[in-house]
Amino acid sequence: MTSQAPNHDDKLTLLRKILAERGLDGMIILHNDMYQNEYLPPAAQQLAFLTGFTGSAGVAVVLPERAAVFSDGRYTLQMAEQVDQKRFECLSYPVNTEDYLTKYWRELTQKSRTPRIGLDAMQASLSLRDLYSNILTKLGGELVDLYENPIHSIWPGRPAAPAAQIVAHGLDYAGVATRDKIAQIAQAVTTEGADTCLLTTPESIMWLLNVRGGDIDYNPVALSLAVLHCGKNGLPALLDWFVEADRLDATARDSLPSAIKLHDTGPYGTETAKIQAFKTHLAQLAATGIKLLVEKETAASGLVLPLETSLDASGGKIIYGRDPITAAKAIKNPTEMAGAQAAHKQDGMAMCQYLAWLAGCAERNELPDEVAAADYLKNLRLQRNLCVGESFATISGAAHHAAVVHYHATPDSAIKLSKGEIYLVDSGGQYLNATTDVTRTILIGQKSEADGDKLAAMQECFTRVLKGHIALATARFPQGTSGVHLDGLARAALWQVGLDYIHGTGHGVGSYLAVHEGPHSISTPYPQRKASAALEPGMLVTNEPGYYRKGAFGIRIESMLLVRRDAKPKDEHEMLAFDTLTLVPIDHQLIDLELLTATEIAWIDAYHRRVYAQIAPELNPSEQTWLAAATRPLTETKAETDHGKKSQ
Amino acid sequence: MTSQAPNHDDKLTLLRKILAERGLDGMIILHNDMYQNEYLPPAAQQLAFLTGFTGSAGVAVVLPERAAVFSDGRYTLQMAEQVDQKRFECLSYPVNTEDYLTKYWRELTQKSRTPRIGLDAMQASLSLRDLYSNILTKLGGELVDLYENPIHSIWPGRPAAPAAQIVAHGLDYAGVATRDKIAQIAQAVTTEGADTCLLTTPESIMWLLNVRGGDIDYNPVALSLAVLHCGKNGLPALLDWFVEADRLDATARDSLPSAIKLHDTGPYGTETAKIQAFKTHLAQLAATGIKLLVEKETAASGLVLPLETSLDASGGKIIYGRDPITAAKAIKNPTEMAGAQAAHKQDGMAMCQYLAWLAGCAERNELPDEVAAADYLKNLRLQRNLCVGESFATISGAAHHAAVVHYHATPDSAIKLSKGEIYLVDSGGQYLNATTDVTRTILIGQKSEADGDKLAAMQECFTRVLKGHIALATARFPQGTSGVHLDGLARAALWQVGLDYIHGTGHGVGSYLAVHEGPHSISTPYPQRKASAALEPGMLVTNEPGYYRKGAFGIRIESMLLVRRDAKPKDEHEMLAFDTLTLVPIDHQLIDLELLTATEIAWIDAYHRRVYAQIAPELNPSEQTWLAAATRPLTETKAETDHGKKSQ
Repeated sequence: MTSQAPNHDDKLTLLRKILAERGLDGMIILHNDMYQNEYLPPAAQQLAFLTGFTGSAGVAVVLPERAAVFSDGRYTLQMAEQVDQKRFECLSYPVNTEDYLTKYWRELTQKSRTPRIGLDAMQASLSLRDLYSNILTKLGGELVDLYENPIHSIWPGRPAAPAAQIVAHGLDYAGVATRDKIAQIAQAVTTEGADTCLLTTPESIMWLLNVRGGDIDYNPVALSLAVLHCGKNGLPALLDWFVEADRLDATARDSLPSAIKLHDTGPYGTETAKIQAFKTHLAQLAATGIKLLVEKETAASGLVLPLETSLDASGGKIIYGRDPITAAKAIKNPTEMAGAQAAHKQDGMAMCQYLAWLAGCAERNELPDEVAAADYLKNLRLQRNLCVGESFATISGAAHHAAVVHYHATPDSAIKLSKGEIYLVDSGGQYLNATTDVTRTILIGQKSEADGDKLAAMQECFTRVLKGHIALATARFPQGTSGVHLDGLARAALWQVGLDYIHGTGHGVGSYLAVHEGPHSISTPYPQRKASAALEPGMLVTNEPGYYRKGAFGIRIESMLLVRRDAKPKDEHEMLAFDTLTLVPIDHQLIDLELLTATEIAWIDAYHRRVYAQIAPELNPSEQTWLAAATRPLTETKAETDHGKKSQ
Repeated sequence: MTSQAPNHDDKLTLLRKILAERGLDGMIILHNDMYQNEYLPPAAQQLAFLTGFTGSAGVAVVLPERAAVFSDGRYTLQMAEQVDQKRFECLSYPVNTEDYLTKYWRELTQKSRTPRIGLDAMQASLSLRDLYSNILTKLGGELVDLYENPIHSIWPGRPAAPAAQIVAHGLDYAGVATRDKIAQIAQAVTTEGADTCLLTTPESIMWLLNVRGGDIDYNPVALSLAVLHCGKNGLPALLDWFVEADRLDATARDSLPSAIKLHDTGPYGTETAKIQAFKTHLAQLAATGIKLLVEKETAASGLVLPLETSLDASGGKIIYGRDPITAAKAIKNPTEMAGAQAAHKQDGMAMCQYLAWLAGCAERNELPDEVAAADYLKNLRLQRNLCVGESFATISGAAHHAAVVHYHATPDSAIKLSKGEIYLVDSGGQYLNATTDVTRTILIGQKSEADGDKLAAMQECFTRVLKGHIALATARFPQGTSGVHLDGLARAALWQVGLDYIHGTGHGVGSYLAVHEGPHSISTPYPQRKASAALEPGMLVTNEPGYYRKGAFGIRIESMLLVRRDAKPKDEHEMLAFDTLTLVPIDHQLIDLELLTATEIAWIDAYHRRVYAQIAPELNPSEQTWLAAATRPLTETKAETDHGKKSQ
């Protein structure tokens, strides 16, 4: 009995009791861990533990008399289903609206004169902590940094920290040795005026050390902590790495250069010991007057805030800047670029096999449901060379489910793919040499099997999404251009008819790392936020415009792009352009040729020729036949259509 | 003799002596005044006084052993000509590069361990002061706020502050009464959590009070200071206005509602008395615990920093946000929109008369030089209904001078317009009902009089600039879209051939106020900066893509746009679009029809039909003949050309 979690009512009562004992008027409960992971390990899912809500974004606020869960519009329905609304108000907010939180807080806090609100300092990044602190201060309240999370003490069965094995990421895939990466990053840290750099982002540490782990779903990372010393006065750079040493297999252990000082915080699963050892180490460093480079957006406030006094006394300081690894690893080296090309050929084969299979299922009237379809695709992908898993949970949405941008099919929700309807599949693989991400939207069955009016609507929207996809794929732009500068090109064709999509057009992608990595993106500029980093040769970015008609259908066409130089004799600027890496046909049946220019049609035909040339040789005869049809020139389709029109 | 300024050598020696006496290691000398005016009154031209450099942007740094003047690339040549380089290094920097300044400062300060560098706190905005302070602190130095500018004490003949008459801006032009504007702004201030608002931007105060002045070249503003009290607990809002009362004429005095408390700081030209009275007033307010809304980008640091201690003690505080008037005045009311339409018809007439006259000059071989041409245009404009002056110094650039983005023709520099070459004219008027800004680039004489290769190059570039101009003019976009999101549309056609322009595509425009007003713009997103505000119905913005080939020719096509709602039945979002207000033909001779789509040609023809319909009735017969030819359909031109080709 003692290890059983209290029920939701008990949890709230217990939590409020602890808060009162600690002199707090409330607490903010984040959906975050110390590493700012996109996917949280079970031990960090305190929001779900307290409220029942399992969405991928959200925050709860517990006050003496009331409590609320906030998440964005994607999760309105799910919150209502999962959360006991007698205990928690469920509130949807537009993504990233400080105004909304301020308004809510003003309402909450107007009765209490100076509310003291707790926040777990080890979960909140410095920037998130500042956000909440500013809101509260503006309203006359006070944020209290908590170093012991009250929720942990009411969570007897809290899962252990993940502790998967750590393996070497060989030079054949990584391309650059750890030693050289450390020198490169040390140089970048020095340029910022710092001599030491705090590293807590798992992808950054994995990239730097050429190792991979398995602590987090879909992301091959290990949770560990590090400090880089730049090595002044001719001394080489050194890295203090805090990790449970038993987790390293022989390949990983042997691959570490002498510049790495491994601080063994084992045994497995003792996250607290690792963090404590790291904090002690940081405190010792602070006393020596280091100039510590810290990224506010990712560094846990609880790691950094305790250093301030000591740094002041020792003549050291904190220099806020970007994690220099984020920019460095975004620019793929030649080995990684070659790996991305090779992996996309493998990934294209899996996707072509999948789409050919689906076409067969439709013909045989044996269409799978959304879950079975996603499983079939996963299986095909795992058979591909160097593929070790999926890069995120496949979005497999049929008909109206395709309109749900982040739809996750479950056995309960899954419907069968059906003829005449759209099917949207957004998926990706983790290959040892790359991470992939691709979305295709297809018409199941034949055009004649669809409702005429609906088909026309789907075709118009699909074609406008495709026009945006092509505009971005064929863009040329001067060096220094940021993705927000190109985003409008992908939307203009939809805007002309009053349509749009509510997500970004593209995100950076890691190399056998996270499928969402900065510092660049192709997205709407928000007046409140800084623009994303400039696009540079060697960066990977997705090209994924879409359109979603609620309750009816959804469309997204996503390929991965590689930024490259594109010099022509008369250019007055260093020009850049994209190569499309993804090799999967775009469904002819959803294209309205009347809406395309000759240039756009030529682009599609050339793309399809390339897909066929690369993928067909590896397929079996029936798959080849399907691919030949799927990639035949649109000009032929157009001729047939025109002929058909004339002969009617 | 005593009133004569010391020579440059003496000035530097004297300044260094004063700095040393005050315990300073150096000083930053800004090209700024307390009001952050774009054009500085003579009394604020300390940069020119000290260094000789008269450019519109720049900064000097004086240290014990060295001194430097910085400006951007536009002024490289001018700096070299005006500045004594034995005393000042002349350094060009890319616009807005904190990195560059940091690098320079690092070099400067590496010898002195903790340099104390002075900055005039009354000239530096809070954000500019923060910028320099951060750079210096990062490098181990310290910024010292100066409340007495050492340069003033070595500048015996320093001009008096401007003190032109202040007149009412009647409701027929302003559209909304001061009383109502005060209520609107008080509400906006309250929403920010403040109860008081510091107002120091001249355009903001003029707009709020429905008055205009004449203290600054081209901008009909008076330099004054104000504090808005929002009026809690049912009390009405009040404005404390600090200005020399003798400057108000009867119309202005009679127009002020009772909510304005005029603090007479006269007599004329006693800027110091006004500022001192205002500072005393602010200090008194601070002691009462006000919550003061302050805009960091425009508020002089010397006005705000002294309040901090007092506010802390009184329980008041400073709330940093945007000057709420900037957003309010950007959205023109119906009277202002009608005024803008009317003024653009007047402005179009002046421009058409001008272009017709130039065509005649070319025919008669009596082409003027650049200065005479600009004077002729000014004269035509001043004859138009309600025109009271120019909105900025006309850029009148012939041939290679057109390639200088901010070219200012002087009697020394002026060349004659010549046949077969380009002429670029960027000009605007201050009308009582609007401010205008228009650029046209024309070929002087006939195509046959131009060098064939050069003509082809000019046509290709002109047509690509025009494609960008049309793409922006015809854009539809959802409410909430920022101008940086549309900027790429205006550049894509140039980017395709490796060309670009180094300025923004568009800026906001005041209503009989400044020709450059925010908070919106259409411009390149800088990774370091926040995006500009979303475009909203009622905003005015320029559409001015360009292209500049150094030493050869320059092109800019600029019209003013009005943002409006554009609802169509099937729209899923609130859509916006632009109306082009400017009514001046675009030169057919510079258009390469082969590069235009049918849709683009149709847009030009429709635009020219509208220009002819609006402008022709007001012109004399010979001007009408010119306008009919200048606005004839391109389709006719194309037919003629095609016919010509066939008959060759």
